[in-house]
Amino acid sequence: MSDQQRQLSLNAFIYPAGHHESAWRHPLTTPERLYDVSYFQEIARTAEAAKLDAIFFADGPALRSDVEHGAAGALEPITLLTAIATATERIGLIATASTTYFEPYNLARLFASLDHISRGRAGWNIVTTGTDVAAANFGLSSHPDHADRYARAREFVDATVKLWDSWEDDAILIDKAAGIYADPSKIHEINYVGRHLRVRGPFNAPRSPQGHPVLVQAGASNEGRAFAGQYAEAIFTAHQRLSDGQAFYADVKQRAVQFGRNPEHVKILPGISPFLGDTEAEARDLEREFNELTSPEYGIAQLEALTGSSVRHLDLDAPVPAGLFGDAGDVTDNKQSRLQVIAGIVERENPTLRGLLHRLAGARGHRVVVGTPVQVADTIEEWFTQGAADGFNVMPPYYPGGLEVFAQKVVPILQERGLFRTEYSGTTLRDHFGLPRPESQYADAPGTVAL
Amino acid sequence: MSDQQRQLSLNAFIYPAGHHESAWRHPLTTPERLYDVSYFQEIARTAEAAKLDAIFFADGPALRSDVEHGAAGALEPITLLTAIATATERIGLIATASTTYFEPYNLARLFASLDHISRGRAGWNIVTTGTDVAAANFGLSSHPDHADRYARAREFVDATVKLWDSWEDDAILIDKAAGIYADPSKIHEINYVGRHLRVRGPFNAPRSPQGHPVLVQAGASNEGRAFAGQYAEAIFTAHQRLSDGQAFYADVKQRAVQFGRNPEHVKILPGISPFLGDTEAEARDLEREFNELTSPEYGIAQLEALTGSSVRHLDLDAPVPAGLFGDAGDVTDNKQSRLQVIAGIVERENPTLRGLLHRLAGARGHRVVVGTPVQVADTIEEWFTQGAADGFNVMPPYYPGGLEVFAQKVVPILQERGLFRTEYSGTTLRDHFGLPRPESQYADAPGTVAL
Repeated sequence: MSDQQRQLSLNAFIYPAGHHESAWRHPLTTPERLYDVSYFQEIARTAEAAKLDAIFFADGPALRSDVEHGAAGALEPITLLTAIATATERIGLIATASTTYFEPYNLARLFASLDHISRGRAGWNIVTTGTDVAAANFGLSSHPDHADRYARAREFVDATVKLWDSWEDDAILIDKAAGIYADPSKIHEINYVGRHLRVRGPFNAPRSPQGHPVLVQAGASNEGRAFAGQYAEAIFTAHQRLSDGQAFYADVKQRAVQFGRNPEHVKILPGISPFLGDTEAEARDLEREFNELTSPEYGIAQLEALTGSSVRHLDLDAPVPAGLFGDAGDVTDNKQSRLQVIAGIVERENPTLRGLLHRLAGARGHRVVVGTPVQVADTIEEWFTQGAADGFNVMPPYYPGGLEVFAQKVVPILQERGLFRTEYSGTTLRDHFGLPRPESQYADAPGTVAL
Repeated sequence: MSDQQRQLSLNAFIYPAGHHESAWRHPLTTPERLYDVSYFQEIARTAEAAKLDAIFFADGPALRSDVEHGAAGALEPITLLTAIATATERIGLIATASTTYFEPYNLARLFASLDHISRGRAGWNIVTTGTDVAAANFGLSSHPDHADRYARAREFVDATVKLWDSWEDDAILIDKAAGIYADPSKIHEINYVGRHLRVRGPFNAPRSPQGHPVLVQAGASNEGRAFAGQYAEAIFTAHQRLSDGQAFYADVKQRAVQFGRNPEHVKILPGISPFLGDTEAEARDLEREFNELTSPEYGIAQLEALTGSSVRHLDLDAPVPAGLFGDAGDVTDNKQSRLQVIAGIVERENPTLRGLLHRLAGARGHRVVVGTPVQVADTIEEWFTQGAADGFNVMPPYYPGGLEVFAQKVVPILQERGLFRTEYSGTTLRDHFGLPRPESQYADAPGTVAL
């Protein structure tokens, strides 16, 4: 980093028809292609042509509310990324998966296999999942509470990384003449015993090209930040204001240092949803077009799901009561972190319910930026140079056009300013993010395999 | 079927370097490519060029024994098949997955996604998994017993098919003008409540191209046969003798009829591992080459794992004691079905331990056929026309060459005899197997979604 300008990381966060909640209704989108793998392969190739670091998929093991008005249902992201891996060469591939509703051995296999198939481009966005509808799909009457979910998440990640490490890099010998396939002293049982999970191992595949997939995380609660400081190599976060982004950035980097980690190996990537126009007025008109396609009914269901508060009794055109979503200063559990963003909007902007719904329609609480390519590049540069971001999870309001215009208009400005690569310098997601390939924690440990 | 000759189904069962346990040591194989997706994509294209119905992968969530002498570790099969889907057009894609160690919602998503991505080529080989080493990877001190595993398997398949059916085929409307994405009356909670599993649903993806992936099954115990008769659309089975194959075939078809099913929609596919030569002597020499590369130590570990009996105290060159693996007539639980095959070999052939190890080295108890292409085609035709098989799971002793020679030498003979297609007539695995596309069980049911 010393003899070269610090570089932005940019991911394309792929969301069916786009991040704006009525994207599927706009003439610019093709929702009839949402279950067609070629649609996503084309988007990934656009992102790769622009030299982005990665594509990113959200996920949850349940159908989200209101299928009548929202583009619902999606391909499973790990298989989808596998199909995308075969249609691309360099771009990183990040999928979200839940530590609450998977078993470590199964999930470790899916991600390691994606890392092998993509030759080192896999990333796992670790979430604990926050909804009762998911719980009901897994035999639970209610969702485990926040602290239990994070306790399991820590055990899950510990066990999973041990599985990924359990074959040392040089375990496979393939000595045909001697009949020795692998060196059993380099393949280790992990014998993980936690309060929530027990996993013996060893893993049933060799160590993957990146050592292990990049660990990504997205929770901004206190628990989430502690978890991020300890484990995350990239963090996806939501902030509306530079000052909030700076405070979060400083806090998480500091936590990483406390865990003995190099803070440069923790990439902080706020979400940003750009509405772009050749003029600011044109951009505003485009945003208005999308907002006019929203359904208050859908927006209310989304807002209630996000906040856990009932709002359907409120007048759409009256100001939202102050404090309805709590105090913006509080961050106590996972849901609170997004709630804090919403409470902050209510506190600062005093919107009507309709106004708040429009504010959230863009990207569910992530920052929507409306302007010219130069204006969007300026705010990216500002956050990047002012200690609020190492890069961004770019959330185009509509796909594929919203990514194309970002790639064609904004990326070249960032490249001209020396802030973003013009060619990939490496082949793996770790290379793009500037992260080291971790050594196996079992390197030089005595073998323990005895099956 | 009436105005056209009955056609064979042929799958290529892909097994790392080949089904013979020392395949990886033979000069014909390239074990250094076993974690390289292009190796498997090339094999799949060979199978597709020969117009085979499907490729098939085994799986288990644990490292199998003896990594020192066996080609151990593998890519996860659902992701691997997804990568293969993008490199092929027509061939079916069957992966094994365990009902004991997965959750229905997660597994349903992976297979439905594979079916969407491949445009209707997915099959699920349903297994309950029979090993304690797997249990230890999922926090259990011992493996659930056979009856419990099958009870869970039934619930698992019931719940999974309901999830796949929960979006009716015409649920998605995409009416941009009216803002109606889907018809909620056509998306159903499944509210599955069993003794082992509870799943609310709905699923979070539309119904897949095949309605649902083809259900494949491989257990030949009494429980396994009952399960197959009720659920399986294709059955992978192991028999050494025509008479055993005929008895199994008649039994399972009859069970299907008892469940009110059309027996033509239950395809019975024994395993067959062909060693091919231009002369029978050449084929025998090739088999001998492979057998000479076996390690008795490895074979003993495999045999003990397969049978649960200790054999390492026996003299390699003395006959195996009669009855060591029980009575060949008994079929009581899952392990017994493979045990029965082995007990039958001991009973009929009175082999030395070394001889038995060689007998099993070829394909772990599946039938090894050694001969010319005409001889192999003859036995395939015999079993197919004499009521023992609807086709075969072909298990080449070595990859990729063992499949290539089968494709180049045996398939054309079967085609000349009118027993096997020369072109695909459809695009889905159901088309290849001659299976109907099932209607959703919720078609015409009142909508129940209320999230």
